[in-house]
Amino acid sequence: MRQSKLFTKTRKESPADEVSKNAEFLIRGGFVHKEMAGVYSYLPLGLRVLNKIENIIREEMNKAGGQEILMSTFQPKDNWEKTGRWTGMDDLYKVSDSSGREVALGPTHEEIVVPILKNYVTSYKDLPVAVYQIQNKFRMELRAKSGMLRGREFIMKDMYSFHTSQEDFEKFYEKMKEVYKTVFNRAGIGHLTYLTFASGGTFSKYSHEFQTITAAGEDTIYLDETSGVALNKEVLNDEVLAQLHLEREKLVEHKSIEVGNIFDLKTKYSKPFDLSFTDEKGEKNIVLMGCYGIGLGRLMGTVVEALSDDKGIIWPEAIAPFQIHLLSLGEDVAVLKEADTVYESLLKAGVEVLFDDRTGLSAGEKFSDADLLGMPLRAVVSARSIKDLPSGGIEIKKRTEEKGKIVTLDELLKIFKK
Amino acid sequence: MRQSKLFTKTRKESPADEVSKNAEFLIRGGFVHKEMAGVYSYLPLGLRVLNKIENIIREEMNKAGGQEILMSTFQPKDNWEKTGRWTGMDDLYKVSDSSGREVALGPTHEEIVVPILKNYVTSYKDLPVAVYQIQNKFRMELRAKSGMLRGREFIMKDMYSFHTSQEDFEKFYEKMKEVYKTVFNRAGIGHLTYLTFASGGTFSKYSHEFQTITAAGEDTIYLDETSGVALNKEVLNDEVLAQLHLEREKLVEHKSIEVGNIFDLKTKYSKPFDLSFTDEKGEKNIVLMGCYGIGLGRLMGTVVEALSDDKGIIWPEAIAPFQIHLLSLGEDVAVLKEADTVYESLLKAGVEVLFDDRTGLSAGEKFSDADLLGMPLRAVVSARSIKDLPSGGIEIKKRTEEKGKIVTLDELLKIFKK
Repeated sequence: MRQSKLFTKTRKESPADEVSKNAEFLIRGGFVHKEMAGVYSYLPLGLRVLNKIENIIREEMNKAGGQEILMSTFQPKDNWEKTGRWTGMDDLYKVSDSSGREVALGPTHEEIVVPILKNYVTSYKDLPVAVYQIQNKFRMELRAKSGMLRGREFIMKDMYSFHTSQEDFEKFYEKMKEVYKTVFNRAGIGHLTYLTFASGGTFSKYSHEFQTITAAGEDTIYLDETSGVALNKEVLNDEVLAQLHLEREKLVEHKSIEVGNIFDLKTKYSKPFDLSFTDEKGEKNIVLMGCYGIGLGRLMGTVVEALSDDKGIIWPEAIAPFQIHLLSLGEDVAVLKEADTVYESLLKAGVEVLFDDRTGLSAGEKFSDADLLGMPLRAVVSARSIKDLPSGGIEIKKRTEEKGKIVTLDELLKIFKK
Repeated sequence: MRQSKLFTKTRKESPADEVSKNAEFLIRGGFVHKEMAGVYSYLPLGLRVLNKIENIIREEMNKAGGQEILMSTFQPKDNWEKTGRWTGMDDLYKVSDSSGREVALGPTHEEIVVPILKNYVTSYKDLPVAVYQIQNKFRMELRAKSGMLRGREFIMKDMYSFHTSQEDFEKFYEKMKEVYKTVFNRAGIGHLTYLTFASGGTFSKYSHEFQTITAAGEDTIYLDETSGVALNKEVLNDEVLAQLHLEREKLVEHKSIEVGNIFDLKTKYSKPFDLSFTDEKGEKNIVLMGCYGIGLGRLMGTVVEALSDDKGIIWPEAIAPFQIHLLSLGEDVAVLKEADTVYESLLKAGVEVLFDDRTGLSAGEKFSDADLLGMPLRAVVSARSIKDLPSGGIEIKKRTEEKGKIVTLDELLKIFKK
């Protein structure tokens, strides 16, 4: 895409009402627009990142056997009364219409997915099944202040699995641990992300979180660096340490962000709706459930927190809005023509390229925009780079490198050949 | 996909609480699940249709130069007060948090998109620009009764364009008329859909709607069949007839569904936010706007209303959940093996195929499921079809045909070769 056509622009000044680095960079870069605390709109560059994260998650959920659906935001009050959460959940938004009828704005979807499955599950032959969606959620956060990390409105992938036995559930749950690791590896934060023991809440002894180590994290985890086992501060006690064979003095404390979680729901939500199946012996049993969440905006924000530097964002290749940021410097006709050729050649080769073809800007302004926007590779066409054409032509530099090097167009194209 | 793995099932009985054909077939087929009046969740088959419609729309909006964004559902009350719609719009949902702060649930996004553009538009050089999103909307419909045609929660594509002059706006508006025709052609209802003159509401003399003729429509249009010009009943008067060079007695009345609309917004929403630009002479002017909507769920419902028969849905090829529905009949091992071969060959050729591999069902049950689900092509492998292998093997029949014919696997594959 030509940057001259992109309707957003970068800005130098930090937004006055944001304290978090992720929101600062994402707003300054024109990735998102803040509507109010905890509510953001995605602008073209931000939506491209979101879509890439979404595709990684979708591919991995499909590989794990998940069937994609899309549930509603409006949820019947009756369903929430059945599970006791209409009054039992503090952060539930309730909406009335002019006739006074109330509905919930979905913060999660057990109250919807279980009645859906009840239409289709009657026998053990219908199980196991796993369904998931990528959808907008609402949660009443009165003090949303961490940018994309904690929203009042946010996009989540939530998967729900349904099983005939605890054993079958556990097999799937173990598989999902690996699936989640793959997702975070592909998104570029695998090396900072640990499967973490956490409290299971009221219905299960433990749950598992995926925690990404970064200074901005609101959570605290204790990591055994040798084994890679981590536990959330909330479960740091002698009993848990003994169970996990960990020694307290070997654990290192880190601030971290919860980028995913997986839960054993047992029959907590299937029972109120009598979601049951007939087993091989003709006996009726309640279905066992698990759930598996990843916040997409939060993942985006975490990547920015964990991988940026002073100058801006450093997107991992797999989720960068574009694979390469091409810059033309100066107003020299030969430079502009050569940059155009490079742009068209990259497009033709199927490379996603943001082309800073804007005129009237200094090299310094273009470089600092490129650093802020954070494409993994920068390519510059300038009077200097084209002076030894046809052998040279383009100066390339990774976002993480200090110094670039001159390459030919063919050499540049070769980088993107699989 | 193997139908034995699909978690949804068809059902014979019509849902008791639905009066519209689109909801009846979509629920019976397991495309959607009704959560409450006017609120539906999309199940795997329905989501596939939705995604195909979405892709058609996205491709055409991108071709028209639209930049995709994704705006929030929560919208600040302040913004709605600025345009006078906080109290002026009856069907606006308002939500309070526990601190009593109110926000709007977006039924449309002028109040969000204009402030976003205000960050980036200062000069005539920044214009024109067009942005769009595909996103969930909320509208307080107290009597939602037309299935997917009129929802309290529904997915829309809404595009907003921004211009320096009425002339520039009109050029874009005319282009969008053609873009919309292309969308409805591609979605399979172009032959039933007419550009229709309608009232422009309070801020513009006329607007244009795209109306699809079908008996279930809530609108009434008058069509001049020779010219293809249509007008909404609300503007059927002598002045308009004269202006459009139409004769009242040549017009044919039809029931129809509004599947899209395009509006001249002038400065109605840019003015309250002072969205302005500096022109070539250094003078400040208010930006002119247009908006362009298509409801995706409504389009899906309209296709079902317009193209189904007594037995079920007839999906156009471009938006069918699968290109072909493959059925194996009976429990004969040779049949099941041959059907498996056909399935794997179609998958390998990149064909989207729903494979009814279920056992224990009669041929009649499978045929009626195939008719209800409505894939454009049905392929049957049965003891009869494979009896003259290798020259035969598969009986194919279009959803719209009465009689099928026997083909070889190679002949079947050839149908899908581009």
